[in-house]
Amino acid sequence: MPDATFTAVSLADAVIGGDRRAIARAISVVENDPAGAEPLLRRLFPATGRAFVIGITGPPGAGKSTLVDALAGRIRNGGESVAVIAVDPTSPFSGGAILGDRVRMTGHAGDAGVFVRSMATRGHLGGLSRATSNAVLLLDAAGWQVILIETVGVGQDEVDIARTADQSVVVLVPGSGDDVQALKAGIMEIADIFVVNKADRDGADQLVQTILSSMALGEAPRRVPVHKTVATTGEGVDALWRELQGRRASADAERMARQAAREEARLREIVAGRFRASLDTVVPAEELQRLVRDVVERRADPFSVASGLVARAAAGLIR
Amino acid sequence: MPDATFTAVSLADAVIGGDRRAIARAISVVENDPAGAEPLLRRLFPATGRAFVIGITGPPGAGKSTLVDALAGRIRNGGESVAVIAVDPTSPFSGGAILGDRVRMTGHAGDAGVFVRSMATRGHLGGLSRATSNAVLLLDAAGWQVILIETVGVGQDEVDIARTADQSVVVLVPGSGDDVQALKAGIMEIADIFVVNKADRDGADQLVQTILSSMALGEAPRRVPVHKTVATTGEGVDALWRELQGRRASADAERMARQAAREEARLREIVAGRFRASLDTVVPAEELQRLVRDVVERRADPFSVASGLVARAAAGLIR
Repeated sequence: MPDATFTAVSLADAVIGGDRRAIARAISVVENDPAGAEPLLRRLFPATGRAFVIGITGPPGAGKSTLVDALAGRIRNGGESVAVIAVDPTSPFSGGAILGDRVRMTGHAGDAGVFVRSMATRGHLGGLSRATSNAVLLLDAAGWQVILIETVGVGQDEVDIARTADQSVVVLVPGSGDDVQALKAGIMEIADIFVVNKADRDGADQLVQTILSSMALGEAPRRVPVHKTVATTGEGVDALWRELQGRRASADAERMARQAAREEARLREIVAGRFRASLDTVVPAEELQRLVRDVVERRADPFSVASGLVARAAAGLIR
Repeated sequence: MPDATFTAVSLADAVIGGDRRAIARAISVVENDPAGAEPLLRRLFPATGRAFVIGITGPPGAGKSTLVDALAGRIRNGGESVAVIAVDPTSPFSGGAILGDRVRMTGHAGDAGVFVRSMATRGHLGGLSRATSNAVLLLDAAGWQVILIETVGVGQDEVDIARTADQSVVVLVPGSGDDVQALKAGIMEIADIFVVNKADRDGADQLVQTILSSMALGEAPRRVPVHKTVATTGEGVDALWRELQGRRASADAERMARQAAREEARLREIVAGRFRASLDTVVPAEELQRLVRDVVERRADPFSVASGLVARAAAGLIR
């Protein structure tokens, strides 16, 4: 825990009570100390499952942040509270501090019904999507009614993050060439709804057609609604929100399947985390480095070395 | 194995012997059946460690493919063989077949000293970087002297793939706005060398300055060479290759540290894969789905469920 004045139990209770300072602190815990976060999340978990979680994904420059701002405003007008998680993938080397924290959502400053948090994580594979998924749990338990997750980029992490959402919105923009690149990178398949933002630009209708024909082709053709927005003026944002609301109401088979996939992924990640922790507990860092050196110098192959490590880590979990 | 005429041993021996058909088949094995690939990789491993592995990363539209073609041509002129792995991140849903296989490297068709392979993987976290890393092992064992890995995008997978390279080249392009976005997404920190491609365009020198000043700032300021190229004409490609060759020769501490990091990641991934396999062997799919349903409906929390699964999977590895 980052502060001795909070135990896992008292922090969890403060989060469930809606204390903003406790929420911010709890998110830092899931970001920096996944193992330490477990008692906290375990206590919070029964209070989760009520928030409507929406992923907003797309290539750089598509105007996602502006759209998220506009959507948050629309949601507030309807009287619901909204939390925004802005995910910044960063490198494992520096933590990506080059641009520092961004200033955003300034129009909502002082609104107690809006919560904004940037998330970034250095370090290991999948860390960002796990931290994001756990931050959603925290905000959900704290009673935030709608949670918007904004992700930049088109990597596997973004796909995993999109999977944690109830609905995924993919934002594209006319005339940048990003449309075709987005097709290529495979973010099309995660879309429940497309948004062509900056739709006052030339080429907006052409992009709509490209999307529609892409969705009609491929291995698994399907119908996905395409909305045109101009996030800077708010045009189209109301229609987008009504579409999302319509989907929120329907508790169909697809939605259940998605929740199951999300919880299965969470379960597998918790299991994997326990194994990783056992390996690091059972095998001293110095010994691991020696084994790695043997592999680098080809005195041993990694598969044989792994066999020994697996047996020890497994024993450590049973003892 | 995909074909009964090859055993792991005979396939490994054919790969080491340089048989192109065997290499292509072995790459399919590491792509589709990570567990099945283990006996193959174990046998090949002692023959690896000789190739010079170069990662080429950058945002969509930077001209990476053209640069890779030009660099491959320059390497061939020097008399060395070159293998190209073009990594296409795709979605877990359709396998990203929308655009299909790309036609490329047509200028090198029929050159026995050039090998080109696209890689894409559907499925789970880290699958693409593991498959790519194993494909590099195969090509290394087969005697390919230089291996170029081209990756699209800026996600965690790309960062992980870049880490498997001896040298990472980050390609940017003037005037697209991608320069700032690339800074933001954190691919800057993985660069050993920058390339400003399409350097005959306006804004090339400005982009060089932006890169240099970015590298001079931040948490860990460092000097990184910036090369200007026009890949379509070959301009600047010779200087880039000479820079890479200079770095190849130096067996410095940083290089050793990078090899150690790469082999440690491989070791950890093999260990994690064994645990995943044990979980799936020990816990029937039907039971897992029932447990997931308990979590979805908040009758159980995932941390308590995970405890039971961990104990059983660990026991399965010791038995």
